[in-house]
Amino acid sequence: MSIGTDILERVAELGRHSDSPDHYTRVYLSAAHRAAARRIAAWMEEAGMRVRVDPVGSVIGRYDAAAPDAKTLLMGSHFDSVRNGGKYDGVLGILVPIACVTELRRRGERLPVAIEIAAFADEEGARFSTSFLASRALIGRFDRGALERRDADGVSLAEAMRSAGLDPARIEAARVDPESLAAYVEVHIEQGPVLLDAGHALGVVTSIAAGLRHTVRVKGEAGHAGTVPMPRRRDALAAAAEMVLAIEKRCSATPSLVGTVGILRVKDGSSNVIPGEVELTVDIRAADGKTHLAAQEDVFAACEAIAKRRGVALEHTKTHEVKAVPCSPRLQDAIARAIERTVGGRALRLPSGAGHDAMVLAEVTDVGMMFVRCGAGGVSHNPAETVTPEDADAAAKALLGFLRDFEIGSPPARG
Amino acid sequence: MSIGTDILERVAELGRHSDSPDHYTRVYLSAAHRAAARRIAAWMEEAGMRVRVDPVGSVIGRYDAAAPDAKTLLMGSHFDSVRNGGKYDGVLGILVPIACVTELRRRGERLPVAIEIAAFADEEGARFSTSFLASRALIGRFDRGALERRDADGVSLAEAMRSAGLDPARIEAARVDPESLAAYVEVHIEQGPVLLDAGHALGVVTSIAAGLRHTVRVKGEAGHAGTVPMPRRRDALAAAAEMVLAIEKRCSATPSLVGTVGILRVKDGSSNVIPGEVELTVDIRAADGKTHLAAQEDVFAACEAIAKRRGVALEHTKTHEVKAVPCSPRLQDAIARAIERTVGGRALRLPSGAGHDAMVLAEVTDVGMMFVRCGAGGVSHNPAETVTPEDADAAAKALLGFLRDFEIGSPPARG
Repeated sequence: MSIGTDILERVAELGRHSDSPDHYTRVYLSAAHRAAARRIAAWMEEAGMRVRVDPVGSVIGRYDAAAPDAKTLLMGSHFDSVRNGGKYDGVLGILVPIACVTELRRRGERLPVAIEIAAFADEEGARFSTSFLASRALIGRFDRGALERRDADGVSLAEAMRSAGLDPARIEAARVDPESLAAYVEVHIEQGPVLLDAGHALGVVTSIAAGLRHTVRVKGEAGHAGTVPMPRRRDALAAAAEMVLAIEKRCSATPSLVGTVGILRVKDGSSNVIPGEVELTVDIRAADGKTHLAAQEDVFAACEAIAKRRGVALEHTKTHEVKAVPCSPRLQDAIARAIERTVGGRALRLPSGAGHDAMVLAEVTDVGMMFVRCGAGGVSHNPAETVTPEDADAAAKALLGFLRDFEIGSPPARG
Repeated sequence: MSIGTDILERVAELGRHSDSPDHYTRVYLSAAHRAAARRIAAWMEEAGMRVRVDPVGSVIGRYDAAAPDAKTLLMGSHFDSVRNGGKYDGVLGILVPIACVTELRRRGERLPVAIEIAAFADEEGARFSTSFLASRALIGRFDRGALERRDADGVSLAEAMRSAGLDPARIEAARVDPESLAAYVEVHIEQGPVLLDAGHALGVVTSIAAGLRHTVRVKGEAGHAGTVPMPRRRDALAAAAEMVLAIEKRCSATPSLVGTVGILRVKDGSSNVIPGEVELTVDIRAADGKTHLAAQEDVFAACEAIAKRRGVALEHTKTHEVKAVPCSPRLQDAIARAIERTVGGRALRLPSGAGHDAMVLAEVTDVGMMFVRCGAGGVSHNPAETVTPEDADAAAKALLGFLRDFEIGSPPARG
């Protein structure tokens, strides 16, 4: 049996710890979530790691270095999920490193760095709208205001923590000293079709994309669909449609740039009424900040021009913004070498359009990421999400190679 | 006090018979609707008309001709409303003719035709989704299947009729013998901005537009907004946006043609998900059937081409279709002459994009329509709908001129 098969068996086993009998959903601190945490802790122990549960419920396993006082190479990802999500998202970045430690221990090898694997308790934030809660706590930047947020049943985050035996007063103790870290490395399913289309099992992440989200409101004039002549109309939907296409066109002009209108609503829409008001969302992401800013400026200039020409009003509100997070070139090269030795050929480098815990860890240490090919056309956050045993095997072998060659670099000074 | 002021006072009085204290809504057979019927009957009697209530609750007043056995010139419109509608829609076509009969009687004049004014009880069909119920009953084409339809409170149409003292078994008796009719003439607020923009108080309707409504479903592929490169997408919303603009463009190419997408919904829309499925409505209307058919063919060919190029699936279902109803040229000319003598200049002729009871009456007799200028930018089906006393006065004077000059023509043979 290959390491890849073992990993996928564990993915399947964790997948059965779900909040719903019908689909895969595992939100922060649910019963299924705590059961999954116990299972992960048991596997870490089997692999010869010392395990602790941190104050927010993340499970962290440690495999000591050859020498005491060595720095720590932190690896990991999250084990919560979106509602009705895919079973590989997050957990692959916990199970692949555990498989590597199992192998190191079998060979009796210790590295010049200690290995820690963090199974982050909350990254998707599906229950309390708390993205990156666990990795934020680990770097000492937990937002205490979030403790008062309530889930759909009215349970506050603080109450949920206490029910799970966690003490909200102790959250600060989750902090890991950044000086102790050599780097952070995350293995993750790609969640897109790039590796699949290019025929690569694995890829090296160059950066985590800059992203912004706006809510745009277009106000025209409602009217009777039969009685207002076309030149007399100020149709909010026709204006919005032109904006959707302008966003698509501008974001198609540059590789690594993507733009999406995911929501579009006609207010009080009726088949025989000219739309008077439309609300839509704009999501723009790019591998680097410069590309992102240029696209953002062009997109909103285009929307303003469309609104002006059509005599409709335009308002937009920023609802979300993240800066681009470059992966460490040194770690990118090391991961690429490991992939090239394992699967051959030249490693494919690609940006990550989705956010990951590595974005948060990048605030305190160098980060690297390895993507694993996503099957089924690249779908993710979806039950159809899939990874083959061969690709999981390649990921474990490449990560093991990376670990065995890992050298503590001289990280650039960090602000 | 002018006739126009009298008419607007009656419009205001009827406007107070509303199902809601907050806005103007008067649905078929509500208490307010029956009170409005009694008020209209009283005004008809005051004008010297004999009044009957027909089996569906329409109020019909008769002013006899100079000689017995003369044919009947039927005029009228509806006194039900849409929810939160405008006070002039429908009732103007009842009150203007009553004002004319009042004037004829004051002068002691009888015409070579009898005059009947039908205050139709249900045209909008807001309560039971029964458009043109009352005029359909009058021409003997009531759909008995509608009797089982239920309103939002679960009351069936048959039950509502019985509660109002009407006998569903007698509906057939509402039929008027088409041989007895000389013509049908309807005065109506324009419900659009054409007369307002052109600076005309009144207009002659050339035809009631052909209309069709389709529901269109566009199926692409959902995906993560951050991870699927633009060239790899099959975005259902971007495809739908292109269709919205194609419809707008094609329907702007021909005067008297209008096209509207009034509803557009992204299924399971989320700001960070590429839309996988979109549903939209298409409403196309044109003054004549040939223009309508050509536009319809071009619009759906354009949508098919967009779907094909973008690799998305397209389904569309026709939900509504009406043929164009031309107004009688003889009546158009007579109405135009009356307008020209009353307000001067050359009468403006325009199609009606909205449906009216005249569409139904056209199945059995010649029809003519006169539009009255709609204020407030041409808005209708809206509390802002308005008509000035001067325009109401002009309408009454023009209609009176039309009536005094009315000659029974030789109507073309009807199928």
